[in-house]
Amino acid sequence: MTFQSHAPDTPMPVVDLAIVEANLRRMQAYCDQHGLKLRPHIKTHKIPDLARRQLALGAVGITCQKIGEAEVMADAGIDDILISYPLIGASKVGRLGALAKRAHISIVADSPMGIETAAAAARDAGARIGVLVEFESGGARVGVQSPQEALALARLITQTPGLDFLGLMTYPLGERAAAFLVEAKRLFEVEGIAIPSISAGGTPTAFSAHNVPGVTELRVGTYIYNDRNTVDAGAAGLDDCALHIEATVVSRPTENRAIIDAGSKTLSSDLTAGGAARGYGLLRDYPEAVIVKLNEEHGIIDLSACKEKPALGERLRIIPNHVCVVVNLHDEILVHNGGSDAKMVRIAARGLTR
Amino acid sequence: MTFQSHAPDTPMPVVDLAIVEANLRRMQAYCDQHGLKLRPHIKTHKIPDLARRQLALGAVGITCQKIGEAEVMADAGIDDILISYPLIGASKVGRLGALAKRAHISIVADSPMGIETAAAAARDAGARIGVLVEFESGGARVGVQSPQEALALARLITQTPGLDFLGLMTYPLGERAAAFLVEAKRLFEVEGIAIPSISAGGTPTAFSAHNVPGVTELRVGTYIYNDRNTVDAGAAGLDDCALHIEATVVSRPTENRAIIDAGSKTLSSDLTAGGAARGYGLLRDYPEAVIVKLNEEHGIIDLSACKEKPALGERLRIIPNHVCVVVNLHDEILVHNGGSDAKMVRIAARGLTR
Repeated sequence: MTFQSHAPDTPMPVVDLAIVEANLRRMQAYCDQHGLKLRPHIKTHKIPDLARRQLALGAVGITCQKIGEAEVMADAGIDDILISYPLIGASKVGRLGALAKRAHISIVADSPMGIETAAAAARDAGARIGVLVEFESGGARVGVQSPQEALALARLITQTPGLDFLGLMTYPLGERAAAFLVEAKRLFEVEGIAIPSISAGGTPTAFSAHNVPGVTELRVGTYIYNDRNTVDAGAAGLDDCALHIEATVVSRPTENRAIIDAGSKTLSSDLTAGGAARGYGLLRDYPEAVIVKLNEEHGIIDLSACKEKPALGERLRIIPNHVCVVVNLHDEILVHNGGSDAKMVRIAARGLTR
Repeated sequence: MTFQSHAPDTPMPVVDLAIVEANLRRMQAYCDQHGLKLRPHIKTHKIPDLARRQLALGAVGITCQKIGEAEVMADAGIDDILISYPLIGASKVGRLGALAKRAHISIVADSPMGIETAAAAARDAGARIGVLVEFESGGARVGVQSPQEALALARLITQTPGLDFLGLMTYPLGERAAAFLVEAKRLFEVEGIAIPSISAGGTPTAFSAHNVPGVTELRVGTYIYNDRNTVDAGAAGLDDCALHIEATVVSRPTENRAIIDAGSKTLSSDLTAGGAARGYGLLRDYPEAVIVKLNEEHGIIDLSACKEKPALGERLRIIPNHVCVVVNLHDEILVHNGGSDAKMVRIAARGLTR
């Protein structure tokens, strides 16, 4: 590849836009085939130009997790943004309202306090904010526990000035989703409240979303790059992984130990569902090697199972376990297009926890 | 505290400079008492003003892990910088040389290739670079395995134009250090090579460094803030932890589950040596609660063991497991001085992996 002749300094996240484009088109085609709206989650890439590409290919809008991410995307001219995270309390009101004045903003809530926060933002800004009610479908995270609770919140939203009830959402698309939706639809129909949208999320389960009756919208993030987790889930192959970390072997203290310059500051400490035995990333060129431990700047590799072993100074390519957290660690990323046109791109929405 | 009346947006890393000052003075006093030179590692705070405070209190210089960190500190006028990480290959030569032209730079090496890299930088820049040989003392990371190897590298350094042999270093200060040093001193004496400095690192073992004969310098980072790991190691108490994460309960889906807005993007996925059972951080006000799981923006808390349980919207204070990786995740930090003079400070050297 062209950029390799320049031997970029390491550790370096590298993205192949040719693979990105194929990944984006595959997901859009799946959604088009099944009549699902695609609302990509930008948490994986955090780059406005890639969000714009997702919209150009047919996405109806984007998903962000935090107000700061939505601000970056609104700055880039993106007009339809769902913040799929509960916003709670006075410190969120001002920025949410300011955002709602300059873009079509929707949020999610699983409590009256979340609805109050959005209502205060809409009132102060003189804007409207859409609200989806989040329900739990087996992920043991946030979300109302019963269709009755969902109905009570939907009723509150419809009665609150400045807010529009947009429907229901869940993440991930777990086992309880179908049963929940059947009962919710029945209850909402009795009450006379329409459910405009039913939004489901998560790349690992994305390609079975059409099997859950009622789902109208898909929120997926990781599919743009893919990673070891999505490969493990069967949602992608290794060759669909658009991002790798380029690292250098900086020490070979023993026969079966190599140290690379990619530690937890580069790869994060996230494991796969397979746990510690599978290590902190996959070495493309030495798949038998295991990244057994990470310090901040050191990746410690066990080479016991390798016939060929990497040499000091050698460049290694690593597929991360969880690409979203890896992207968040870096200010910029080296992108190329099938080996050409390499350039550094700023990850404009990284690190925005608020 | 004053800043709490402003209710900062969350999640927010918060540092009490009064605790910082006490931590800095305690370590400097320990080093002064035992005739050890203190060379603090800035990887924990990554803030030039705090490095300058460490120097003002008596530190002989600072330690950085990457060239980018050293560049930020040199920009701030700091003149004596050890880069305690193996620099390998052509991509490191240019920046290392440029740095050596404007500050006193030393590096570590455990291979001839590391020495060659430094030599090329010194030659190209027309500058001198100090080199310490890193040895392994039980940490199973980098470093030469035997005093014989250390001697061979020291000999190479003394024979290489532009380089000065500065001594030996290790991290952490493990069980094999004392025996290694006895044998190394004997070998070096026979060869007639002086060992100007023996540098040891790590906050958990810091206060026993004087028990290892020959150690002349202490490289410690975490002691400035402390964290759950240093408390577990007995090197600090909970009240010596200068940094906490302020988070908000954003969902209370069930009786015994609370979700906070601090996930792995805020706390990192680092566990303590105690493993998953101890969770991803300590809740100061609910010590029986366990942060059982982190998603990127969600911290999932099990409240089963709590008599009192936090309410939706409540602010919680979290002591991180590993404060260095937490600091690296944030662009800025809220500092105050015992509750007064709160202000946001930029973490200038965060994210510098190269």
